[in-house]
Amino acid sequence: MNQIFSTDSIPPAGLTPEGDLRRVRSNPDFWYPVAWSRELKVGKTIGTRYAGQPIALVRPAEGEVFALEDRCAHRQVPLSKGVVKGQAVQCCYHGWAYGRSGRCIDVPYLGKGKLPNGVRTYPCREQDGLIFVFPGDPERAAATPLPRLAQTTNPDYKTRRFGRHVKCHYSFMHENLMDMNHQFMHMKQMGQMKPRFLGQDRGPGMIEARYTFARTGGKQPLGEALVFGQKRDNSAKYAHRDVMTIRTEYPYQTLKIQAEGTPPVMDLWIVYVPQDAEEMTNRVFGLLSIKRPRVPGLLDMAWPFLVAFTERIFSEDREIVELEQAAWDELGGDHNQEVFPVIRSLRELLAECGIPAARS
Amino acid sequence: MNQIFSTDSIPPAGLTPEGDLRRVRSNPDFWYPVAWSRELKVGKTIGTRYAGQPIALVRPAEGEVFALEDRCAHRQVPLSKGVVKGQAVQCCYHGWAYGRSGRCIDVPYLGKGKLPNGVRTYPCREQDGLIFVFPGDPERAAATPLPRLAQTTNPDYKTRRFGRHVKCHYSFMHENLMDMNHQFMHMKQMGQMKPRFLGQDRGPGMIEARYTFARTGGKQPLGEALVFGQKRDNSAKYAHRDVMTIRTEYPYQTLKIQAEGTPPVMDLWIVYVPQDAEEMTNRVFGLLSIKRPRVPGLLDMAWPFLVAFTERIFSEDREIVELEQAAWDELGGDHNQEVFPVIRSLRELLAECGIPAARS
Amino acid sequence: MNQIFSTDSIPPAGLTPEGDLRRVRSNPDFWYPVAWSRELKVGKTIGTRYAGQPIALVRPAEGEVFALEDRCAHRQVPLSKGVVKGQAVQCCYHGWAYGRSGRCIDVPYLGKGKLPNGVRTYPCREQDGLIFVFPGDPERAAATPLPRLAQTTNPDYKTRRFGRHVKCHYSFMHENLMDMNHQFMHMKQMGQMKPRFLGQDRGPGMIEARYTFARTGGKQPLGEALVFGQKRDNSAKYAHRDVMTIRTEYPYQTLKIQAEGTPPVMDLWIVYVPQDAEEMTNRVFGLLSIKRPRVPGLLDMAWPFLVAFTERIFSEDREIVELEQAAWDELGGDHNQEVFPVIRSLRELLAECGIPAARS
Repeated sequence: MNQIFSTDSIPPAGLTPEGDLRRVRSNPDFWYPVAWSRELKVGKTIGTRYAGQPIALVRPAEGEVFALEDRCAHRQVPLSKGVVKGQAVQCCYHGWAYGRSGRCIDVPYLGKGKLPNGVRTYPCREQDGLIFVFPGDPERAAATPLPRLAQTTNPDYKTRRFGRHVKCHYSFMHENLMDMNHQFMHMKQMGQMKPRFLGQDRGPGMIEARYTFARTGGKQPLGEALVFGQKRDNSAKYAHRDVMTIRTEYPYQTLKIQAEGTPPVMDLWIVYVPQDAEEMTNRVFGLLSIKRPRVPGLLDMAWPFLVAFTERIFSEDREIVELEQAAWDELGGDHNQEVFPVIRSLRELLAECGIPAARS
Repeated sequence: MNQIFSTDSIPPAGLTPEGDLRRVRSNPDFWYPVAWSRELKVGKTIGTRYAGQPIALVRPAEGEVFALEDRCAHRQVPLSKGVVKGQAVQCCYHGWAYGRSGRCIDVPYLGKGKLPNGVRTYPCREQDGLIFVFPGDPERAAATPLPRLAQTTNPDYKTRRFGRHVKCHYSFMHENLMDMNHQFMHMKQMGQMKPRFLGQDRGPGMIEARYTFARTGGKQPLGEALVFGQKRDNSAKYAHRDVMTIRTEYPYQTLKIQAEGTPPVMDLWIVYVPQDAEEMTNRVFGLLSIKRPRVPGLLDMAWPFLVAFTERIFSEDREIVELEQAAWDELGGDHNQEVFPVIRSLRELLAECGIPAARS
Repeated sequence: MNQIFSTDSIPPAGLTPEGDLRRVRSNPDFWYPVAWSRELKVGKTIGTRYAGQPIALVRPAEGEVFALEDRCAHRQVPLSKGVVKGQAVQCCYHGWAYGRSGRCIDVPYLGKGKLPNGVRTYPCREQDGLIFVFPGDPERAAATPLPRLAQTTNPDYKTRRFGRHVKCHYSFMHENLMDMNHQFMHMKQMGQMKPRFLGQDRGPGMIEARYTFARTGGKQPLGEALVFGQKRDNSAKYAHRDVMTIRTEYPYQTLKIQAEGTPPVMDLWIVYVPQDAEEMTNRVFGLLSIKRPRVPGLLDMAWPFLVAFTERIFSEDREIVELEQAAWDELGGDHNQEVFPVIRSLRELLAECGIPAARS
């Protein structure tokens, strides 16, 4: 790997100019997915979370999904345990009903007088199998675009939807994906792959890193061959042909693999949605689009192997970021000693775009 | 339901004049059950709790049950792990022995000199299958009456003893039982029952709410039919005939169903004994007396169905109050927005009769 | 039991002159075992702990075991998840490598410039199947002797290695073993054994208590007969013949049983290594040497019974010390009311030799 950086000045361990990165809260003024569309059946409600805020998603028999604070104004029990009735959801406990706007529209046993306060509502949109909410200032929702979701709408690709809960701050996830030197960890799955860092781009709210790879040992795994649509050998001819571009476009992340002048063979979109109020856990929503090879049906046939392969990779990644979080918990702060400039830039970006934790 | 109240002036959310109700401690100057008689065999000792205080109950071969602080004065291990010997209990670790009064009466290996300090003792009484202690000022115990325990001693009734641990402050339990508008939650078990609130009474240390019911949908469940001793139809003839009276007589609660001028068909006595020091968990002791119908043996035969029916109801109640507690924990305080005057009065009563949490 | 002490002046409950004994930290300027040799295979690394410090033990293919701080300097993930390569361990995540000295000797993708900081190293020794580290001032390690490990090297004895995690402060373990009046607790396993306290010795960093025993009831258990190499009866002839000597030689503890002028029939060496930073849990490492009887093979044949017997004893001890710790947790401090002078001395010794907890 040709190095294009030196470590003459390693910055103070762990800190960004904004302080401890793991205490930086995610910026709520973006669209965050909080559920897969298939999780929410017609006429039902489910409970989900963003950064400690419980959110009830409601899918009425007619009309679009809506999102309310998941606590009845009466006794704070989850509305998502309730019953959907027309364009409203009725709390399971005493039957208080709330409309799409969050206003309380009925208390079944109430006498004369004004209705009690309602609950908070969240701007909500559904796209390509994901349900998004806008947890920040609702006035900004309309002007904030939804992200492009990999190749979900492109028939040339097959897309895998995946995700799970990971017990770490979202920043560990961004760093994990962008620092391809961690290929070392996936050696058992991938064989020995030597990354070459090509360079980085930095813009407002985004950072991008580009790599190529050469196989230096081991056999190409089936999963990888599937991604590239062909079996590649170890010769110099193929080494460093495909460029991997990893980009954090706050708060989302993408990873694309493509040879010059051709469409990507792989296009990943992924986001890490904080779950608890401290944001020390996150739920991953990932869309992995793979270009269909010329032979029809081949990708579908091979799909189970590809799923298993990516699961193993993801499982190794999850273990290591949870160990990073556990070390942070024990040490009571970030002691990261970063030597890789693109990761230092990424850390600054995440700190700038996020919300500094309130000093206590 | 005829409403006899308005909500023109909903009080500030969550607060009673004494502050956050969920921080009000139970008043120890009452008799609290801490175990069922059948749990404590002759010649044995068991450990139990009241509001974070560990209590060893001891049943000697002769004489009445007694109750000691469940921590040996030597090394604070539970005396309830020990051995009953005559009128004393001997710690399992080094054999220190304590009498009925809590005094240390023997240290097997002790030389000359005074015996060490003993442990606290609790006034203790056993009645109708329950073991009560008086955790407050012992001087008040004798003058404080034991409560009347449903119809346990009346041969016209069959009584079910039930209980379990519930993870919430005891006040949620009182509110749950007294607000019959939560019939909405039991719709699956009970069918649609419309409660009509008849009125309330308030006295020193007590509050009472009265309701009637009319079935507006669904079939009468078997369990309910058993309670009423006959199958009732949906006609106006039977609607609103039986009056349900729910009473908190601090710290106990009762629920009776009876038609005017007749003995109750159902008579429930229940109490919620705080377990941990913060009183955010409680153990329920309930006695449910059902009047025997004229056909002998019918109630005994039907008993398993009635048990299953009441278990399902209780299980729904437990789930919801634990969700209330979980919401309180997350919000760090009570945000209850109560519109029902009888529940507002109940909350005031519980706050008045309890012990305000020390300001920290 | 002849008492040679009085309790006219029981000291204030729970406190040593240094304060709460359970807040006294173990003194790191000693050799502590952190693993059994057999746990660490050639060419592998494992993670272990001393008082909240994670320690990676590394056994290279050639050369001695070494011990490093178990956190990569880069992202603080455990080095013990890494790969041993020559005389170095390589972090599993990005492949940073550390030598025996803890210095970072390679970052595979690093450009020009100085290598980043390394990690802490611990003096490390292996003896008789145990791996020791010296967590204190490394300059003192060479001059601090390793303890004598029971009779592990004496062919006249067979030695059992045992241990497990116990959820309590190490001081409860010392007190448990030294106060033989707790034979009361093992009555089911041992029958009634009456201890007689013969006296104590106190020196710098050490305290010793001596007892004899007489059987006052029950049959001699098989395990005990094995230890003594013969079946002893209850007659006065054998009572009080064997002397049990229990010694805390900080931070280790030993227990020997021997008749005057003969080698010990049993020789136990044991240590309680704090695991968490608060030192409220410990890992036991014990070596129990039993003198082989004259009949060859007898001890080996009987070994499984002896193992089961000692496991039952140890299991009772573990339960009780964990109950002591639980009571300490609940009470928020030590309320021990000690009447036995040798235990009072032991408590002073542990407080003197340990490190007072920082006042917070």
